[in-house]
Amino acid sequence: MIPTLEWLPTGVNFLDQTKLPLEETYVLATDYKQVATVIRDMIVRGAPAIGVSAAMGMAIGIDRSTATTLPVLTEEVALIAKTLAETRPTAVNLFWGIEEIRSLYVELVAKDTTIPEIKASVVAKARRMYDEDIAACKQMGAHGASLLPKEGTVLTHCNAGALATCGYGSALGVIRAAIERGHKIDVFADETRPFLQGARLTAWELMKDNIPTTVLCDNMAASLMRQGRIQAVIVGADRIAANGDVANKIGTYGVAILAKEHNIPFYVAAPWSTLDLATAHGDLIPIEQRAATEVTHSNGKQMTPHGVAIENPAFDVTPAKYVTAIITERGVLTAPYNQSIKAMATQTESELTTV
Amino acid sequence: MIPTLEWLPTGVNFLDQTKLPLEETYVLATDYKQVATVIRDMIVRGAPAIGVSAAMGMAIGIDRSTATTLPVLTEEVALIAKTLAETRPTAVNLFWGIEEIRSLYVELVAKDTTIPEIKASVVAKARRMYDEDIAACKQMGAHGASLLPKEGTVLTHCNAGALATCGYGSALGVIRAAIERGHKIDVFADETRPFLQGARLTAWELMKDNIPTTVLCDNMAASLMRQGRIQAVIVGADRIAANGDVANKIGTYGVAILAKEHNIPFYVAAPWSTLDLATAHGDLIPIEQRAATEVTHSNGKQMTPHGVAIENPAFDVTPAKYVTAIITERGVLTAPYNQSIKAMATQTESELTTV
Repeated sequence: MIPTLEWLPTGVNFLDQTKLPLEETYVLATDYKQVATVIRDMIVRGAPAIGVSAAMGMAIGIDRSTATTLPVLTEEVALIAKTLAETRPTAVNLFWGIEEIRSLYVELVAKDTTIPEIKASVVAKARRMYDEDIAACKQMGAHGASLLPKEGTVLTHCNAGALATCGYGSALGVIRAAIERGHKIDVFADETRPFLQGARLTAWELMKDNIPTTVLCDNMAASLMRQGRIQAVIVGADRIAANGDVANKIGTYGVAILAKEHNIPFYVAAPWSTLDLATAHGDLIPIEQRAATEVTHSNGKQMTPHGVAIENPAFDVTPAKYVTAIITERGVLTAPYNQSIKAMATQTESELTTV
Repeated sequence: MIPTLEWLPTGVNFLDQTKLPLEETYVLATDYKQVATVIRDMIVRGAPAIGVSAAMGMAIGIDRSTATTLPVLTEEVALIAKTLAETRPTAVNLFWGIEEIRSLYVELVAKDTTIPEIKASVVAKARRMYDEDIAACKQMGAHGASLLPKEGTVLTHCNAGALATCGYGSALGVIRAAIERGHKIDVFADETRPFLQGARLTAWELMKDNIPTTVLCDNMAASLMRQGRIQAVIVGADRIAANGDVANKIGTYGVAILAKEHNIPFYVAAPWSTLDLATAHGDLIPIEQRAATEVTHSNGKQMTPHGVAIENPAFDVTPAKYVTAIITERGVLTAPYNQSIKAMATQTESELTTV
């Protein structure tokens, strides 16, 4: 079990993903501000993991509050939510994680719950979200495994693995599930510039599980596809719009085009919390721009001439037409996505109502 | 004038491209073995520059020989040619550069030329090839400039500039020529993993010429194309087969697919010496595999887990169908390339015969 993040009596403990693969060190966040810093600095990253981390940030903020009256605590909750919401703009799971705890808080306050009861409830809820995230990954695996080849090589981009979730992974979870069901799968991992999530994180966690893994530079995938060496692509997502457009790590859109050109299926695996029904299409998704130094510098050494301009968007949007299927814990979505996503949302709501 | 390489009385002087952009240092090769090392270690790189470097390697080897009889010198010439030919397999210009000097040598021997005369002739020939390379770049610029937008952004991959030639550049030469003719062009330079020729070399030489340049990671180009921020792509070539298939720096094929998907023209600029009429199509071009450490390590630090498998092909092949036009010093080739290349070859041979 890869310990991406964990609720401890002393705080929220995060595996420091900026230090992988050569160092396995941990950062213990003992208040909500430290959780915000951990998310902003990408010590934890990956949309599902960010969502649960944000919920735990909310929970630790409320749990550690010294407020003695509900009005004071309510003001603090607003500040905690704002602080966490300002860390990273693209992954909708961040806002989902914050909102899950905030809405529970509002509900409890409306019921005249005591502060100690509120604290116990939000902590329990955040910990339940952690368990549910792992369960969702396993469900994605169960739904998606049969889509992957019985024998072949699967390309992935960035890290949508155990390290991007609370465990097991979304895209890598589907790969794990396929292998558990007897598929013989090798993985090609795009190194994923500039942050090298593929080279550092995907390679690290797949090797831990003895899954055959080869790292390549992002610009090598096209050539391997042309040689018939890639049978499927599977990636995660940071936000999926109501029409099926997928925001994910920069470079995903290019891989999707290459897959289409070579008639290779292109799958997206993401928990339902990544679906953003309030966003009609991908062009409305805010794209985080990160610091130029991620591109210009490598291990502290400057690689580019002084003063050159830099592009560094952290994400791109893949239009739904390139996506063969979206694998969620609730089932597999296919085109037309506007309809299939709406149907799954309605079905779930009605199940929730009738249960 | 960017001093990529230069024939000096003391040897062949190379700008050390592995040290750019922050250090401008030189390596003086005083014998042919050192020239071979300079090519193998990518102190000089870029197909046209490699071609002239190989010719200069042949010339310095012959010029510095202590042989006093032609049979001994002829054996040495075979060894020099073999040593240089084994440095890098993909750029056909390497073999062209060697062959230009070797065939002149054979011709001179057949005419009972003296050793001192042979030495003077091969050195003069190598130096003439240097001048002709720059002239060819200027001609490519003249032929290709009007293909680039009057105002817009041009994407390039790797470095096909002054640093890849004896000066001015092939792809970047066309950009320079367009700007000299009044076009307002900004350049997007793919950083070009793993060796970062774009981030280090293209950015460096374009900034020297005050051409507005932005560096991006290779995986960002697709997203910029979708946003309408790229109007044309231009790259160099390491070998062009008789049917117009283009071997160039790894990643070129992917960029070509992205350009096609966004209806952006994709141009290749290369001297005629890059055309390999003896190779029918791209799949027959040998592709150099380079050391895994280029991918796994960055500035001496290991970025990947111990023992992970690595892909590191230095080049890929872009099928002719993705190429809008090939710009050479003899003119602009368009599809069907089998015919246009053959016609241009025949025309040139007939000109050579009739002159």
